[in-house]
Amino acid sequence: MSTRSASDIRNESRFAVLRQLLTSGMATRQQLAVATTLSTATVANVVAELQDAGLVHVVGKGASVGRPSSKLAINNEPLRLIGVDVAETYATAALYSLSLEHLHEHTEPLDDTDNQPATVVAGVAAAVRGVLAAAEISPDRVGGIGISVPGQVMPGTGVSVFAPNWDWHQVNLRDQLEAKLDLDVGVHLDNPLKAVTVAALWLGNGPATDTMVVVNLGTGVGVGIAIAGRLVRGTCNNAGEWGHTTLVQDGRPCRCGRRGCVEAYVGVPGMQLTLAELAPDHSAVALHQDEFIAAVAGGLDAADPIMAELLDRTCASLAYGLGDVVNLLNPDRIMLCGWMFGALRTWIMPRLTDLVAAQALEASLDVVSLQPLEIGRNPVTAGMAIFALEDVLARRGLPSRVV
Amino acid sequence: MSTRSASDIRNESRFAVLRQLLTSGMATRQQLAVATTLSTATVANVVAELQDAGLVHVVGKGASVGRPSSKLAINNEPLRLIGVDVAETYATAALYSLSLEHLHEHTEPLDDTDNQPATVVAGVAAAVRGVLAAAEISPDRVGGIGISVPGQVMPGTGVSVFAPNWDWHQVNLRDQLEAKLDLDVGVHLDNPLKAVTVAALWLGNGPATDTMVVVNLGTGVGVGIAIAGRLVRGTCNNAGEWGHTTLVQDGRPCRCGRRGCVEAYVGVPGMQLTLAELAPDHSAVALHQDEFIAAVAGGLDAADPIMAELLDRTCASLAYGLGDVVNLLNPDRIMLCGWMFGALRTWIMPRLTDLVAAQALEASLDVVSLQPLEIGRNPVTAGMAIFALEDVLARRGLPSRVV
Repeated sequence: MSTRSASDIRNESRFAVLRQLLTSGMATRQQLAVATTLSTATVANVVAELQDAGLVHVVGKGASVGRPSSKLAINNEPLRLIGVDVAETYATAALYSLSLEHLHEHTEPLDDTDNQPATVVAGVAAAVRGVLAAAEISPDRVGGIGISVPGQVMPGTGVSVFAPNWDWHQVNLRDQLEAKLDLDVGVHLDNPLKAVTVAALWLGNGPATDTMVVVNLGTGVGVGIAIAGRLVRGTCNNAGEWGHTTLVQDGRPCRCGRRGCVEAYVGVPGMQLTLAELAPDHSAVALHQDEFIAAVAGGLDAADPIMAELLDRTCASLAYGLGDVVNLLNPDRIMLCGWMFGALRTWIMPRLTDLVAAQALEASLDVVSLQPLEIGRNPVTAGMAIFALEDVLARRGLPSRVV
Repeated sequence: MSTRSASDIRNESRFAVLRQLLTSGMATRQQLAVATTLSTATVANVVAELQDAGLVHVVGKGASVGRPSSKLAINNEPLRLIGVDVAETYATAALYSLSLEHLHEHTEPLDDTDNQPATVVAGVAAAVRGVLAAAEISPDRVGGIGISVPGQVMPGTGVSVFAPNWDWHQVNLRDQLEAKLDLDVGVHLDNPLKAVTVAALWLGNGPATDTMVVVNLGTGVGVGIAIAGRLVRGTCNNAGEWGHTTLVQDGRPCRCGRRGCVEAYVGVPGMQLTLAELAPDHSAVALHQDEFIAAVAGGLDAADPIMAELLDRTCASLAYGLGDVVNLLNPDRIMLCGWMFGALRTWIMPRLTDLVAAQALEASLDVVSLQPLEIGRNPVTAGMAIFALEDVLARRGLPSRVV
């Protein structure tokens, strides 16, 4: 049974106060109590604890109905957080303050034809060195680092259990990364779907809701799920593999080894295949993934009928897949993100809204809102920085699962 | 944000103690503390509260390492609970003790060609009168009643928002039921998927796990989901409509108004259609649903190749649908139930295990167990009796969401 303990509650109160300080920038204890619906006594305890740990400090005085009250904020000095987003073609390291401001970013290209773990690890290390150099800070100011890699990864052991894009099985990635990175802190490894979900919970479009689904559209596709404000990891951190639910029985081969998966139609290589089917001689067929998506955007801008048809087919597939999510989970919010979505959102959003409506049960459709995830920068690096913040809390004697 | 309060914890502790007393029959405070992992102080508080409310009493003395200790049990007298399962063709009312022993049951047939709410309400009332007569008890001993109806229902308002089988929209069922039933207690209305899930949590195959999915196979099909021991309702109590996820794009018309839904292939009318496609002249084609399923079982027993093909096609469809659930939610346990499954489980289970394996991601497959839901009687009536127990707790001043 999952009976929740007093320490769970304590962690969740701390999470609520921290999140509120992050979103509001500055607040009095009274304002924190109102915003979090915690008691003023609880807020006072949590704030004292965070002040003792050096994570929260007083930045000014407010006055509420005659009572002077301190304005509190996250203490941004001196620690920094790093979030890294590793995908097939790049490793992006971003530097954040403790209050999750995006400060610097550095991207290293990865050769997607070389699947050696050492190559990927070297790319990550170069990206991290790059962002530290750009920020002109020394490695000992890094309080925590979170690194997202595709596929199934176990945060507890740091093992990449399976990464279909690289054909990795049981790669102990954390040990290799820690050896190469030469930081004073351990690495939190996770999956991009988990990262975008925590980013949406902490920094996304308004506070958490009953059931929230974040849809990541890129080379691979998948969803992150949060229910009642908590990340759904599944039994072995593998929940959200929506990209490998079946769209077409005995359909296109998928890199997971099965056939007809959503990803085989909606992921960028799947879109390339759709274009090749529609127009084998189209100039965009042979382009590399990011150039291909740029060509799709260009074609849509220029009213290329082939690109319009490609978009329609991709959106239709996407709508079938999202309709299933709506009917199975009855979410109140579906938020889209990912590099492919970012490049094509102007065209995707209006079509998709109508198409999902045709696939969803009426009652479930009535309560769901489909929207782009509005986070200033890469939600994967932001989410991994949030996991890194958790490590900082733990080392300050405040053990806490942030979600 | 969903920050959990001290009263949530209190309710969950009460739930854990009650569930443990229900499953173990009799236990000392010390045994309850060990089994629930609650502190002995918490167990002592919760037990005192439940004793004050008359729900738990001392039934004997045990001795643990020299210390005498009272053996506790649920106080079964005098209240009874009723759980009602309403489906297209029947209304079954079952009577339970407060410790959820199944005492009596009465079924009224329903005419599935008459979709008037008054007809269904009359059938429910007759089933309830029938079970009270069989038990020879007066209506004032009924401490709570839960009634499950197909489709989307809102427990808070008692409205059947949409029932595709009856073509109901916004029917205020609770008012009509309460007027007709003439009991002293209010009616808890819910959906069979929610009922089977709480039944699995309280009475199913072992304690709750990380992510549990209960699959209900009958005229309609759907799943119930529990994560970390808590029922997933979705935003408007409509989570679990797996029967209306898409199996075949532009496939068979479904009674929900869409096409190609899982239910259109795996629900009993869908199986009837598959048989009609395979062998239009087969003697079972024109049978009523329950006779049809009996004929399928008989044909499989007699090695009828047409029925074997029908079973294979149905299991293949089921496996596609369940593979999607495994890949999306990464559950550790999938439990099957429902009247169709009950009749055909000997044939379904071995085929299904292999077929699901072909549809699931390896890592997610490794951790999931596919098994029949082992609850002695109808899990829908049992689940609705658990919701009724919640009403009893609330009236004793122990407000509690049982899951």
